Amino acid sequence: MTAFVDAHRETLDRALAAIADRGYWSNYPESPSPRVYGETAAAEGLSAYEAQLGRRFELNQPGTVGWVGGERSPYGPELGVTYPQADLDVLLAAAREAMPAWRDAGPEVRAAVCVEIVDRINKRSFELANAVMHTSGQAFVMAFQAGGPHAQDRALEAIAVAYAEQTRVPATARWEKPQGKRPALIMEKTFTAVPRGIGLVIGCSTFPTWNSYPGLFASLATGNAVVVKPHPAAILPLAITVSIARDVLAEAGFSPNLVTLVAENPGGTVASELAVRPEVRIVDFTGSTAFGQWLEEHARQAAVYTEKAGVNMVLVDSTDDYAGMLANLAFSLCLYSGQMCTTPQDLLVPADGVGTPEGRKSVDEFGADLGAAVEKLLGPDAQAVELLGAIVNDGVLSRVDGAGSLGTVVIPSRTLTHPAYPQARVRTPALVRVPADRVETWGAECFGPVSFLVVTDTTEEALELMRRTVTVRGALTAAVYSTDEKVIESARAVAIESGVALSENLTGGVYVNQTAAYSDLHATGANPAANAAYTDAHFVAGRFRVIQTRRHTT
Amino acid sequence: MTAFVDAHRETLDRALAAIADRGYWSNYPESPSPRVYGETAAAEGLSAYEAQLGRRFELNQPGTVGWVGGERSPYGPELGVTYPQADLDVLLAAAREAMPAWRDAGPEVRAAVCVEIVDRINKRSFELANAVMHTSGQAFVMAFQAGGPHAQDRALEAIAVAYAEQTRVPATARWEKPQGKRPALIMEKTFTAVPRGIGLVIGCSTFPTWNSYPGLFASLATGNAVVVKPHPAAILPLAITVSIARDVLAEAGFSPNLVTLVAENPGGTVASELAVRPEVRIVDFTGSTAFGQWLEEHARQAAVYTEKAGVNMVLVDSTDDYAGMLANLAFSLCLYSGQMCTTPQDLLVPADGVGTPEGRKSVDEFGADLGAAVEKLLGPDAQAVELLGAIVNDGVLSRVDGAGSLGTVVIPSRTLTHPAYPQARVRTPALVRVPADRVETWGAECFGPVSFLVVTDTTEEALELMRRTVTVRGALTAAVYSTDEKVIESARAVAIESGVALSENLTGGVYVNQTAAYSDLHATGANPAANAAYTDAHFVAGRFRVIQTRRHTT
Repeated sequence: MTAFVDAHRETLDRALAAIADRGYWSNYPESPSPRVYGETAAAEGLSAYEAQLGRRFELNQPGTVGWVGGERSPYGPELGVTYPQADLDVLLAAAREAMPAWRDAGPEVRAAVCVEIVDRINKRSFELANAVMHTSGQAFVMAFQAGGPHAQDRALEAIAVAYAEQTRVPATARWEKPQGKRPALIMEKTFTAVPRGIGLVIGCSTFPTWNSYPGLFASLATGNAVVVKPHPAAILPLAITVSIARDVLAEAGFSPNLVTLVAENPGGTVASELAVRPEVRIVDFTGSTAFGQWLEEHARQAAVYTEKAGVNMVLVDSTDDYAGMLANLAFSLCLYSGQMCTTPQDLLVPADGVGTPEGRKSVDEFGADLGAAVEKLLGPDAQAVELLGAIVNDGVLSRVDGAGSLGTVVIPSRTLTHPAYPQARVRTPALVRVPADRVETWGAECFGPVSFLVVTDTTEEALELMRRTVTVRGALTAAVYSTDEKVIESARAVAIESGVALSENLTGGVYVNQTAAYSDLHATGANPAANAAYTDAHFVAGRFRVIQTRRHTT
Repeated sequence: MTAFVDAHRETLDRALAAIADRGYWSNYPESPSPRVYGETAAAEGLSAYEAQLGRRFELNQPGTVGWVGGERSPYGPELGVTYPQADLDVLLAAAREAMPAWRDAGPEVRAAVCVEIVDRINKRSFELANAVMHTSGQAFVMAFQAGGPHAQDRALEAIAVAYAEQTRVPATARWEKPQGKRPALIMEKTFTAVPRGIGLVIGCSTFPTWNSYPGLFASLATGNAVVVKPHPAAILPLAITVSIARDVLAEAGFSPNLVTLVAENPGGTVASELAVRPEVRIVDFTGSTAFGQWLEEHARQAAVYTEKAGVNMVLVDSTDDYAGMLANLAFSLCLYSGQMCTTPQDLLVPADGVGTPEGRKSVDEFGADLGAAVEKLLGPDAQAVELLGAIVNDGVLSRVDGAGSLGTVVIPSRTLTHPAYPQARVRTPALVRVPADRVETWGAECFGPVSFLVVTDTTEEALELMRRTVTVRGALTAAVYSTDEKVIESARAVAIESGVALSENLTGGVYVNQTAAYSDLHATGANPAANAAYTDAHFVAGRFRVIQTRRHTT
């Protein structure tokens, strides 16, 4: 354990500094280049992934009563991996038993062990990239980046914030109260961070690692045991994660049962069963609004952190870089076929069009130009699939294939054939024009590669629609394009009022659907799309408590 | 506003330093001595208090539709003060309108204005002492200390923790991501703390200021408007508080409607009505377990912070200062007639008695010696009433007067006559011996001057009873007396396991029922007696969110 503390103290301090100044930093290189990860890393990762297929994924967990799992790659093949089916009574009892030693180890040792886990995860980024690709449908490079280093950076961020919050109160203190001419009252005090209980992490199918790591590591670093319940369609990336965590914990002298996996077959309901167990005191969830609200309503014994659906909007008023804006928007619409919780759903454009250096572009011109930007970005099919990835499930597929019925099609979705995976369902994004009063169409989340071009009378009306929609429906992201600082100021006021992060005039290599660990908060907790943010103090402060002792001393 | 910032920056920094090192500090002198507060302060405070009696307490709040109030001093007299009855729609709308300017002022200005409010409250400590005394039944010096400077220190502590947590993320940041040979991506970012909504503070009758100030100032300092709903029996101390807050806010250029009072007649139900209003996004409550649980269950739109009932236990194993231990315990049992949420309810003593320097004292001897210590502490009636105060309500009175039926009376409660207030109900504390298996008697809160001497087979059994009781029933305090470090270690393990703060071998001027602001946490949030603690980061972190913007820059 001391070795891990020595090895990772500097990394932890660097992360703490980045979190404080919110400048750029990353601990895990995002480039899958052989120059960074080694010449053989990609091939070895692929082999390691392929070696898992069609086999039992052994975790040596207590209470294993069977084998479950039915993942099918959005690119076609069945994975054929099965995972331990858990007897929850046995598993939860083992998790509880594991906690006291972990609690007693203190925040610094826990942080160091957690960083070691993330470092080992990083070393398996190529294996994880294949696992993320073939469960989420992300294209390979994205699966590598978002499922690997970006997720790892979010994990380290959560570990660092957890460490910072646990050490706000010192471990010991001396308290000396003067008593006039009498001797001072002197006390020595101790303060111990104690965990809430067992944390349950309920994963999603689109970002199995990225959306699970903050809760997993925030709970683990604050002394809790963690039960990981992946989405039935995306178990493997989290099974690998759990396996690594168990190995490191055991190596550090702790019980591996601090991190366990509860897998299930498609259609299972173990998440709702686990979420209301009295032993479960923390729930982290990413997924549908319906189940998120169910958890908030029913998992009353737990602190519940949810990321649900939202309606992300972009106000397009004017720009001094029309081509840059179009390229930037096109990327956000295309990346992973719009299957990100942060993908813009509504492009709000005033009826008199968009101000540009080349003069005003009408709404029709803007739509056509954006369509051209999408095509230019995508390029030939073999290149396009590396941006689009595959459609993750039938629900998304039916939405995009039925998009034409929702309004006037501005950019039609095209069906592409993946050269390597002919079974993959690949679609380019659709943009459908609807009038502003068709709120039942554009005002509810339509997850996937369907966005709406919403024409408003004025920029002011667009701002008001944004305010109202974010307030009532929630949003993970919002963006504005305007050359008028007054419009930007109004958009900031709307963002603050409705509680959403705002990206302004993105025309380069930063996209509204992406956030940077240590600097950008993901979600705000201030609108209905999420009740917490990656990763602020609030996200970790409720995962532990401080227990104090005091006694007289001299 | 700048003047307040300049005036209070040093105080804020000093409080932040104290909170970080948990050493002794106080900003508000606890001594009511004329040398500290001035020769005329006591008389002026009394006059100011008396000038309120029998009159309307004018607050100039919007939506005042009538006048309510029916406080009767536990010392006898009706107060005869009436307070504005609020039209909640009008009042809440005014509170909401007041918030944007307060939010935009930022954490530092808010902290400074809040400290100014507390400073002004401090200057009226004698007036408040009379108001607290004649609503809670506390004796005068305690009402001055606990209702005045100690509450003010807890207020400043909450302001400082709120400031610290809001400024963890900087107001602006520059983010520069290298892009190899291409120009770096550079962004400027802003981070704004935004309030959740309206905070509702539901006061209690025994500590109207001390238990209300942490929530009031934590919510206000994080940008929220606050509606203060006092207990119908203890309105005046909070009406004075609200009045001062409104004056300072107006003086600082903000709407006074950031802090408003909602009073009601005895038996009113406005707290439950307010708690579920959609505008109310934070609830702070001190009081019964039943209503606390109702709030947690029903005020789903809000972050709910509750302090409820608990069963506070003291394990008496052995001591190296028998007289000091007895005097210390006697004080905790007598102070305010045991009407503190922190008063020990159960004294756990092993059947073979208590180890002391004079040899083992049998359980009977210990009981008799503690009774003698109580009598010695109390002294003549005229002196005793200055420690005991008055019984706050009929419920407490009937419990103490019926204590004899609960078991074998070890220390009988005596009825005293208050020389200045013959109508006051004054009782000395009762100690009733019950066997360890009578858990239905000693294992539920019996609020007031009734404690139980619970005889256990062994010290180990006592520790196990403590662990189980705190876990299931909750506790605000726990204490242990032992000369055996192994027993202390076991008690610490029990405290950590069950989630309660532990006082060890208190034999001097620090009492288990008292905590020191900036150093001791009050409650833990880790057992059923409370879901939060005064004042850790968790207590404030959920009262605001951070909204971010980002844009390219060069």
